[in-house]
Amino acid sequence: MKLYDAPWAPSPRRVRIFLAEKGIEVPREAIDLRSGEQLGDAYLLINPRGAVPALELDDGEVLCESAAICRYFEALHPEPSLLGTTAIEIGRIESWTRRIEGDGYAAVVYVLRNTVPAFKDRAIPDAGLSIAQIPELAERGAQMWDGFTRALDRRLEDREWIAGGGYSFADITALVTIDFARAAKLTVPERLVHLGRWHAEASARPSAQA
Amino acid sequence: MKLYDAPWAPSPRRVRIFLAEKGIEVPREAIDLRSGEQLGDAYLLINPRGAVPALELDDGEVLCESAAICRYFEALHPEPSLLGTTAIEIGRIESWTRRIEGDGYAAVVYVLRNTVPAFKDRAIPDAGLSIAQIPELAERGAQMWDGFTRALDRRLEDREWIAGGGYSFADITALVTIDFARAAKLTVPERLVHLGRWHAEASARPSAQA
Repeated sequence: MKLYDAPWAPSPRRVRIFLAEKGIEVPREAIDLRSGEQLGDAYLLINPRGAVPALELDDGEVLCESAAICRYFEALHPEPSLLGTTAIEIGRIESWTRRIEGDGYAAVVYVLRNTVPAFKDRAIPDAGLSIAQIPELAERGAQMWDGFTRALDRRLEDREWIAGGGYSFADITALVTIDFARAAKLTVPERLVHLGRWHAEASARPSAQA
Repeated sequence: MKLYDAPWAPSPRRVRIFLAEKGIEVPREAIDLRSGEQLGDAYLLINPRGAVPALELDDGEVLCESAAICRYFEALHPEPSLLGTTAIEIGRIESWTRRIEGDGYAAVVYVLRNTVPAFKDRAIPDAGLSIAQIPELAERGAQMWDGFTRALDRRLEDREWIAGGGYSFADITALVTIDFARAAKLTVPERLVHLGRWHAEASARPSAQA
């Protein structure tokens, strides 16, 4: 088994934090995104989309998408659970994870992919498509970020972790999103004290360094 | 328990097909999207985002996001499994579901939300935000749709259902996406014969009428 990884990208970090919380060690190979290694012939044979992370299994099958890789490991190593054990826990964690991805992570991607020169004609992370940047999307991303951080702050007003039980995949997703957002100059306003408190606690977990 | 539903919208249909495949009956209340009932005070008390579906539990908790509602029911009623039972099945179904959502469903939403007059200033389905339409996104959506349908056709060249085992959540997601796409005038080209064969088979299942 081998995990194709990249040091500063958000999706590989999501998987690394997930594995660290579970105490799982997986051999990793770093793909150099700065030099475009993810778009080179060798890596495109692993994942034709040119995206990291990708998990190569011992029989050669490759599993893509960070959420799918995390679910795979949750099934193999259920404890400690990060995706929920009861129906309502599972539902809450999935609901918040989806909301963080759709409102927060998407906002950051809208800003970065549509403004940074390195993503010219690659506004969608799929090596098979040439997609032009749309600068107006950066403005939409900033508006979405504002709504996202306010909603998450309200959610954390009376609970320690996002989904309501222990630390979960929803928290990992939010931590990765908020730290990644700095690259797009999107931050958490200081007045959002509950979100600030949560971010400090999530960042203090050893897994945050993974 | 009550499922807030809407007859022609894709996300509620995803949940209805999921429930039909499992033989689960849930009391439903239809929200009239044409008259804007989802943005009225009564429904915003149920789901402040103004989106359907939403599942109201007997204790008053409301679960939003179609994928979260489906996962909740999968945990309550594991058979027949639509989200996988082994680790690799779970991973494959999640990976394809994410890809269908990110490449296909997003493409349709890009077209519809950024061109249809009814979505003016509601280019993101969140009642709390006023987001302007960006017509250029429709063009991006059409490009993405082309790549998505070609990739799905290749995937189905040598397998009956998308994730490789039986009919799964990935197939439900793709069926809902492809049927929804007609509203955006995005279709499956006739030359994509594997995707066409799959669509006929998925549409012939009784659950497709749910």
